[in-house]
Amino acid sequence: MKREKKMEEYFDRLWPICRSITGNGLRESFNILQELIPLELHEVKSGTEVFDWKVPKEWNIQDAYIITPDGKKIADFSKNNLHVVNYSIPVDKKVEFSELKQHLHFKKELPNAVPYATTYYKEDWGFCIDYNTYKSLLKKGEYRVFIDSTLHDGSLTYGDILLPGENEEEILFTSYLCHPSMANNELSGPLALAFLYNELKNRKDRFYTYRFVLAPETIGAICYLHSNLKQLVSNVIGGYIFTCCGDNGLITFKQSREERSATNRITEHILKHSDDNYNIVPFDPIGSDERQYGSPGVNLPLGTLMRTPFSEYPEYHTSLDNKRLINFEKLSDIVNHCVQFVDAIELNQKYENQIKYGEPFLSKRNLYEDLSTKRSHSETIKIRMRLLNFLDGTKDLLEVCNRYDYSILSVKHEINQLVEHGLLKARD
Amino acid sequence: MKREKKMEEYFDRLWPICRSITGNGLRESFNILQELIPLELHEVKSGTEVFDWKVPKEWNIQDAYIITPDGKKIADFSKNNLHVVNYSIPVDKKVEFSELKQHLHFKKELPNAVPYATTYYKEDWGFCIDYNTYKSLLKKGEYRVFIDSTLHDGSLTYGDILLPGENEEEILFTSYLCHPSMANNELSGPLALAFLYNELKNRKDRFYTYRFVLAPETIGAICYLHSNLKQLVSNVIGGYIFTCCGDNGLITFKQSREERSATNRITEHILKHSDDNYNIVPFDPIGSDERQYGSPGVNLPLGTLMRTPFSEYPEYHTSLDNKRLINFEKLSDIVNHCVQFVDAIELNQKYENQIKYGEPFLSKRNLYEDLSTKRSHSETIKIRMRLLNFLDGTKDLLEVCNRYDYSILSVKHEINQLVEHGLLKARD
Amino acid sequence: MKREKKMEEYFDRLWPICRSITGNGLRESFNILQELIPLELHEVKSGTEVFDWKVPKEWNIQDAYIITPDGKKIADFSKNNLHVVNYSIPVDKKVEFSELKQHLHFKKELPNAVPYATTYYKEDWGFCIDYNTYKSLLKKGEYRVFIDSTLHDGSLTYGDILLPGENEEEILFTSYLCHPSMANNELSGPLALAFLYNELKNRKDRFYTYRFVLAPETIGAICYLHSNLKQLVSNVIGGYIFTCCGDNGLITFKQSREERSATNRITEHILKHSDDNYNIVPFDPIGSDERQYGSPGVNLPLGTLMRTPFSEYPEYHTSLDNKRLINFEKLSDIVNHCVQFVDAIELNQKYENQIKYGEPFLSKRNLYEDLSTKRSHSETIKIRMRLLNFLDGTKDLLEVCNRYDYSILSVKHEINQLVEHGLLKARD
Repeated sequence: MKREKKMEEYFDRLWPICRSITGNGLRESFNILQELIPLELHEVKSGTEVFDWKVPKEWNIQDAYIITPDGKKIADFSKNNLHVVNYSIPVDKKVEFSELKQHLHFKKELPNAVPYATTYYKEDWGFCIDYNTYKSLLKKGEYRVFIDSTLHDGSLTYGDILLPGENEEEILFTSYLCHPSMANNELSGPLALAFLYNELKNRKDRFYTYRFVLAPETIGAICYLHSNLKQLVSNVIGGYIFTCCGDNGLITFKQSREERSATNRITEHILKHSDDNYNIVPFDPIGSDERQYGSPGVNLPLGTLMRTPFSEYPEYHTSLDNKRLINFEKLSDIVNHCVQFVDAIELNQKYENQIKYGEPFLSKRNLYEDLSTKRSHSETIKIRMRLLNFLDGTKDLLEVCNRYDYSILSVKHEINQLVEHGLLKARD
Repeated sequence: MKREKKMEEYFDRLWPICRSITGNGLRESFNILQELIPLELHEVKSGTEVFDWKVPKEWNIQDAYIITPDGKKIADFSKNNLHVVNYSIPVDKKVEFSELKQHLHFKKELPNAVPYATTYYKEDWGFCIDYNTYKSLLKKGEYRVFIDSTLHDGSLTYGDILLPGENEEEILFTSYLCHPSMANNELSGPLALAFLYNELKNRKDRFYTYRFVLAPETIGAICYLHSNLKQLVSNVIGGYIFTCCGDNGLITFKQSREERSATNRITEHILKHSDDNYNIVPFDPIGSDERQYGSPGVNLPLGTLMRTPFSEYPEYHTSLDNKRLINFEKLSDIVNHCVQFVDAIELNQKYENQIKYGEPFLSKRNLYEDLSTKRSHSETIKIRMRLLNFLDGTKDLLEVCNRYDYSILSVKHEINQLVEHGLLKARD
Repeated sequence: MKREKKMEEYFDRLWPICRSITGNGLRESFNILQELIPLELHEVKSGTEVFDWKVPKEWNIQDAYIITPDGKKIADFSKNNLHVVNYSIPVDKKVEFSELKQHLHFKKELPNAVPYATTYYKEDWGFCIDYNTYKSLLKKGEYRVFIDSTLHDGSLTYGDILLPGENEEEILFTSYLCHPSMANNELSGPLALAFLYNELKNRKDRFYTYRFVLAPETIGAICYLHSNLKQLVSNVIGGYIFTCCGDNGLITFKQSREERSATNRITEHILKHSDDNYNIVPFDPIGSDERQYGSPGVNLPLGTLMRTPFSEYPEYHTSLDNKRLINFEKLSDIVNHCVQFVDAIELNQKYENQIKYGEPFLSKRNLYEDLSTKRSHSETIKIRMRLLNFLDGTKDLLEVCNRYDYSILSVKHEINQLVEHGLLKARD
């Protein structure tokens, strides 16, 4: 089955579940994704202190709605799980409109949209409705509000898995899985992650180790860092955070905090040599889990891979961020981009020319034209001579390719040939 | 009284005095300025060797003039002290025009101007007159020349004062006080210095120590460096030389010799965030006391703060550099600029985020929105998150502000708040 | 005699000789050039291993031609030595056209040109003819092919000479002498080298040692490096490889592999301050002996000095690269450029101001205006003050000149004067 088609099937299964940063909706979503990527799941107990934070109580919800004074049911959780403010405490009472109003959220600028709201760290309750509905409400009278939720000492769930390579240095891919029924933000990221795993799992010759992490946003990433800090800081040399990567927009790459990271250099190289337009933006701790992975003491060299950034599409964090925004071919191209990233980072090394004094005698290795009559060398021979000259053990292949505007992936054959002839030495 | 008005009053009192690099006119000027800035005065004896130089004899003058063959008194010192070449030896004799001509100075290109001339280091005498007067002179006959001056083993006077701060690192402000009746060059600099002192003297919380130095140009600065070299080189981390800063021109900032100095970085930042146009020019040892403070072994990180540079206004070093050139509001703005400079350099530190792993949990400190429904964070919260991320102890605040094009002075409140909450640690 | 005229005479004498990378034509050419530059000749035996290469057998040739089926003599070596593929083995037999065709070389795109071909490292034979002749040949019938050449264990010849200076650091100039009758590539380089020697040989006050090397291309340079590697790597701080420098094109400077070398910095400075246009191109190991001198373990700071690069003129490596391409005035200008390069590199030092604190008192040394009335200093005094300020022992003269866009050669007099006055200290 084509990857896009399969992505769409998983999207459709994941869509209706009411996820949060804890709870059974989150676990159910992990279980579905485990069919694609066998994540090992971990549970972190409510109340656990993780750096500056504390894991909140576990939240679960069965139902929620409002009954208007004239008996209509609105804000019905069973129709759209965005109607209830995520992490609302249970409530079942009658309130005057004036009180209800304090708990109603809507967006005047998008009158058909149900906004997405959360109250993870302050006990409160609320409902989200579209502005048109709000306008039609009687502004007086008794409303019944009903939220059948629980908050209890439970745990927060996250998952990870390693694909080992020759080397313990790691490439990390991560996304987050805590949003209820919204599409681009954020089912696109978890799907990209899962399908990328599929592309890499059967490779025999991985040099680097590949780590995949899926957790709830912010608190989940903090929990993950808290449990794995030392290893991550020691080993991770590159990778991506996936977010908002399924819409029709251009690829947007937000750089890692470390400006000269392999992630930045290689991603910019690949995008430059691609046929598509793209945007590159500097690191900024406004956004998603780059706030945690790029916090000052962690500072992992991870870029953020997006299409349209969250702040630039109006449907963000509303019920309008739905399947109509998703282009599964574009989402699949994100996976293709990552495969190129992996190919490039694996190929990129500080190769060392083994013939340091004078140029290598290519003729005796059948790597040269026998009889010279041409006005200039073939492109292949130029590439060979340039790689041999500049790959002196002090520069990586990427730097040499950039000097000549070669795509790093386009010289793979020449590199392999020169290594086979013993002219270049690859890393130990 | 408004600062501009007060500046003008002091200008008017200082204007008529015949100053030089030594002598009683200089002392009298210091005494007037001491009403504004209680400079401690120092005397350096004639003949004292100061680095490559020697302090010259002290010069004083009572009167000087020329009587023409037809009995007219011209070049009358009592009318304009520029008429006598500064440091002229005493003379009282009759000379033929042909001899007199060797001692007459005028400017053809400014026929109404009396030029300013000096002969500090070669014993000589001379008169300066406007070219129109020169043209009207009989080119033969006997002229009486009279200069009632003295050169004796006396001393050179300079003044300084410290405003102590928490730290012994110093900000140095300096100008020079040796020019007779000229306005922009150079009563503007001493006035700016004195009024700046007034703005800083009552501050309770100075982190840096502020040093104010006023001396005759060149030899005075050399004397000052000779007496204070070690302390200045150890302690001075920034500051300004004031010159030609009272005219109507734009602010011109000549960078310190050390290109990445705090002075350069902060001044450029302030000017960029100001509403006015400005010029920035590189360090050049052609000019004023930057030649001494920026000599290779001294190399203090001082910029030169000007409006129109001396080489760019035609009235420079003539009697036309008079009160009509001065705009006291512009001169007062120089003081305002310096106050901003002080505010910025005091605020600029390598703050260190005390929560290194993961972002700080702002909610529990009431530094975050409780309920998240907005599409994006408020500007205040963005500033907080960016400061907390990048202020990791390796970068100063200025660098972080420049990254986001924030005015450093505009984030002062947020910095203070984050310091109070213990999230940022200020310098020890 | 004018240099251009003399260059032309030597050109005419060298032109007809059939040179190769070994053999008597090469030796004869060296002997002629020795009249201008007393190169010491060295012989390296066939079979000698030099780094990754082996010196080939020595090749000599007396005659070569083809007799067509209708009895015409074509490809006559005695008329043009390009007709035989350089390093062809001896052959004397009749062959069918179909076999001959495998050994015929021509250029469709230049139908009047005899191309230049070589087969140094694979035993083979061949002829080069113009395409018009090729088209006129009977495409069947028996052709007699005759090459009266020898390949024997002999030796490869190269030459070098040193002009000693005060210091053992060296400036290296080199070109290559292995091409048969072609003009720009490559009699221009050897001639430039020889005439440059003439300009430098009588200098009394050379600070650096000057090394001149002339060898066959590639294998000759490799032999030279093999015999002199340690000394060259230790001592050479700059210099040029000459190639294709006699045509009418602009000077093209190909940078040394080491980007911040003195060669690059000084050449770019001289070209910028010249009246002519020019091109600067980055190092690239496609070209001439920069492939060897710029191999990773050697990495000598040599630039390549050319006019039109080999790849950019269509006559390259054909019989059309002949005297009509040469402009002896332009070739002579290459020598002039090199003399400027030598003057500049000798002048360029990290001079150190001996008066570090405060500016030097120039008046007492008669280096200043006595009586100051001018609005600004003379250019001479500005230059003095700037040199004294910035030449603090950390920057070389070139850096200071570039700061002010001064030509380094234009400040020579001021530098010498400041050194004589003891204000600047030259290198030990």
